[in-house]
Amino acid sequence: MVDIIKVKGLYSMCVRRHAPLLTTIERYYHAKHLRTSRMFPGLVSSPPTRQQVDKSSRSQFPETLCKSQKLMLQMGLIQGAAAGTFYTLPLLTRSLEKLKRVIDRTMQNIGAQKVTTPCLAPASIWKASDRWDVMGSELLKLKDRQEKDLCLAPIGRKFRDEMRPKNGLLRGREFEMKDLYTFDASLKEAEVSYNEVCEAYLQMFKELHLDIVKVEADSGAMGGSKSHEYQLISEIGEDTILRCTKCGTSISQELADSHPESKKCLQENCPGNWTETTGIEIAHTFLLGTKYSKIFKAQALLANNKVVDMQMGCYGIGVSRLLASAIEVLSTEEYIRWPQLLAPHQVCIISQQTGHFFEESLSIAESLQEELLSKSHLHNEVILDDRHKLSIGKRLIICEQFGFPYLIIVGKKVQEATPLFEFVDVYKGEKQFLSREQIVSRLSQIDTVVV
Amino acid sequence: MVDIIKVKGLYSMCVRRHAPLLTTIERYYHAKHLRTSRMFPGLVSSPPTRQQVDKSSRSQFPETLCKSQKLMLQMGLIQGAAAGTFYTLPLLTRSLEKLKRVIDRTMQNIGAQKVTTPCLAPASIWKASDRWDVMGSELLKLKDRQEKDLCLAPIGRKFRDEMRPKNGLLRGREFEMKDLYTFDASLKEAEVSYNEVCEAYLQMFKELHLDIVKVEADSGAMGGSKSHEYQLISEIGEDTILRCTKCGTSISQELADSHPESKKCLQENCPGNWTETTGIEIAHTFLLGTKYSKIFKAQALLANNKVVDMQMGCYGIGVSRLLASAIEVLSTEEYIRWPQLLAPHQVCIISQQTGHFFEESLSIAESLQEELLSKSHLHNEVILDDRHKLSIGKRLIICEQFGFPYLIIVGKKVQEATPLFEFVDVYKGEKQFLSREQIVSRLSQIDTVVV
Repeated sequence: MVDIIKVKGLYSMCVRRHAPLLTTIERYYHAKHLRTSRMFPGLVSSPPTRQQVDKSSRSQFPETLCKSQKLMLQMGLIQGAAAGTFYTLPLLTRSLEKLKRVIDRTMQNIGAQKVTTPCLAPASIWKASDRWDVMGSELLKLKDRQEKDLCLAPIGRKFRDEMRPKNGLLRGREFEMKDLYTFDASLKEAEVSYNEVCEAYLQMFKELHLDIVKVEADSGAMGGSKSHEYQLISEIGEDTILRCTKCGTSISQELADSHPESKKCLQENCPGNWTETTGIEIAHTFLLGTKYSKIFKAQALLANNKVVDMQMGCYGIGVSRLLASAIEVLSTEEYIRWPQLLAPHQVCIISQQTGHFFEESLSIAESLQEELLSKSHLHNEVILDDRHKLSIGKRLIICEQFGFPYLIIVGKKVQEATPLFEFVDVYKGEKQFLSREQIVSRLSQIDTVVV
Repeated sequence: MVDIIKVKGLYSMCVRRHAPLLTTIERYYHAKHLRTSRMFPGLVSSPPTRQQVDKSSRSQFPETLCKSQKLMLQMGLIQGAAAGTFYTLPLLTRSLEKLKRVIDRTMQNIGAQKVTTPCLAPASIWKASDRWDVMGSELLKLKDRQEKDLCLAPIGRKFRDEMRPKNGLLRGREFEMKDLYTFDASLKEAEVSYNEVCEAYLQMFKELHLDIVKVEADSGAMGGSKSHEYQLISEIGEDTILRCTKCGTSISQELADSHPESKKCLQENCPGNWTETTGIEIAHTFLLGTKYSKIFKAQALLANNKVVDMQMGCYGIGVSRLLASAIEVLSTEEYIRWPQLLAPHQVCIISQQTGHFFEESLSIAESLQEELLSKSHLHNEVILDDRHKLSIGKRLIICEQFGFPYLIIVGKKVQEATPLFEFVDVYKGEKQFLSREQIVSRLSQIDTVVV
């Protein structure tokens, strides 16, 4: 059944250099379901040590790398490409697709409809709103074969020629955003739409168990009358936030500087004090008013035949940044922790090490995997860790490092009269022995995002 | 409940000009579920006439437009952006997402794993394989703020500076592809992988009921020992295919020209004759051998410690092209037909026109919609056509033009002792009266792709 091939330098097709961290992968053919031995890459052998990662990343990345970025390199979740751009490898790609499904669902629930816009955009749009010059050298510009000016649109998949890309996915030159625009005929209705979207954002962050704070912010270059940032509290965050110790109201340092009255008037209504903290900006919402609708003539024809400029709202979530910064905040130096719903695979089954009980244990693991996979909400969620040259203990540590939420160990106790499995709830830090029926019942109830 | 706003020129934010086809949209707030009146755009009023589309497209598009492209403009499925690039609007976006899910599922089933690659790529990769020069001006090149050479990578989301973009999504400057690479340690194993992928492609095309022919082809600039194109037979296709009348073997005209023996030797084994037909290339597979693995040192370390260059296969499906050309082939001049599984919404319920039975009919329609939507496979699949200023007959024609597979009319017969609905299976051309239970049971069995 197993036909092992070790592959060296498999990544070089993608990465224009040998990838020192990820040199070896084994493939087992004919495995019916997902196994660690079929994963690409990084799940076969133990992850490289922290020292290896540090040494390798110093030569690859001139920019600073934060904790989550080092972890992602160590675990084979990303691979650097050009400066400020990254390949996302299978595990991270799965997690990102889950996040996109969660965002899609949230947006569908408030009646938003999805469109896609091309990356290549004619210069004329950006010139009409003066943003060709305002955005300056941050805009990546190019000419086509007819010498026409184009730019890589900073909407949808976003491009930004960062002066100093750093922290990997947190501040890259190419990243993914979810954008949303609302159009209303009056400011009052636009405010209703605005609040509905803000509420949906907060609800979604809550569903992901992320401590994200809504912060009153400066509208900056975008313009408009009202704006909020959604900040994930983190030491490595570059934005300073002022939070009231009493009522929890938060405003950005920028806003406090440019409009000191915003700080004062809030304080008058509340006896609390302002404390400083730092955050990573995950999302931003703007009540734009008519700034862009005037320029581009987005007008509404009312029932009374009056024509008015549309009141716009614009809203963005940094998709890759959300995931990267969530990992940054939730993980330790050695253990990746995902927002649990977004872990690439929810369940990992670990069978015995090579030895006298090996075959039977593998067969029980396969049968359990098959039963679990047959449930539609566990589609592709259950992988089998068949690195049977490594001890169960060693694999347990590696799987905990990868942050799979539920681990099932097919150990010696499955040979007893009442077969028992060791069941680990990694995120709760609980271990217990459960029967097969109890495991199936427990995992029938977990939330998943099918991708 | 209904609070109508007519919106003029809503598109101008996106399209840098007024969109003459899509000037009016009505929004009903507080509608709990999907309604035509909430769709953006095109579902509210009747579609524009063919003459309006022709007139408008002549001014917007210097390039030729084929049937499917005109239909998509007419129905508000796409909107032109810069030359050779398009906005995909909500209905088409849904359909494309369904196609991507089908492709993902197909690829997962053969054990493929998904990675994403950045659009921005350093010149060095393309220079190493000489493709920077070979691809020449088809490659979109740019410089960053450090004056470093970059290109928009022709992998993943693909960019190609077409000399003459035409037929909209069929030959654009920016389009989406699904790529796949296989790596094996020996040619024999690589051939097994190659055949497995080809088989999966054909199986998927069959699932979509598309008449796609596997054609032996020239490897061209890609190199390698074996290659096949997957051609959708169509009059507007630009590729000439030779098909044997007897055994069905197909080879590309290019291959027959460059390697006349490929034609001869096949004919020797079969008494059939070659006939010429034209097709649209939807996918291409290459058994590449070691051409790229040699350059980039993608090597395998075998069990006997021997190091060999990997045998590569490379495979691509034109995602947006597949959908556009399927629509081209399946549609008439006036009626869009999708691969049924990929229709943006499977079911449309049409309630009564404004009049004495209006309220009751709408309430029955809403309740039926709610019951259907509660089934997980019908998530977001059921829309309610509430354009109640239009007669049922008029809306029936429009819905048939849009190609929703199943229509349910809440007509006078729901007032009878045994309430009956008119049920239309659009793709089979069948109409019948069914009870509510019969409809629910019938629609419980349809195949859908949840997005």
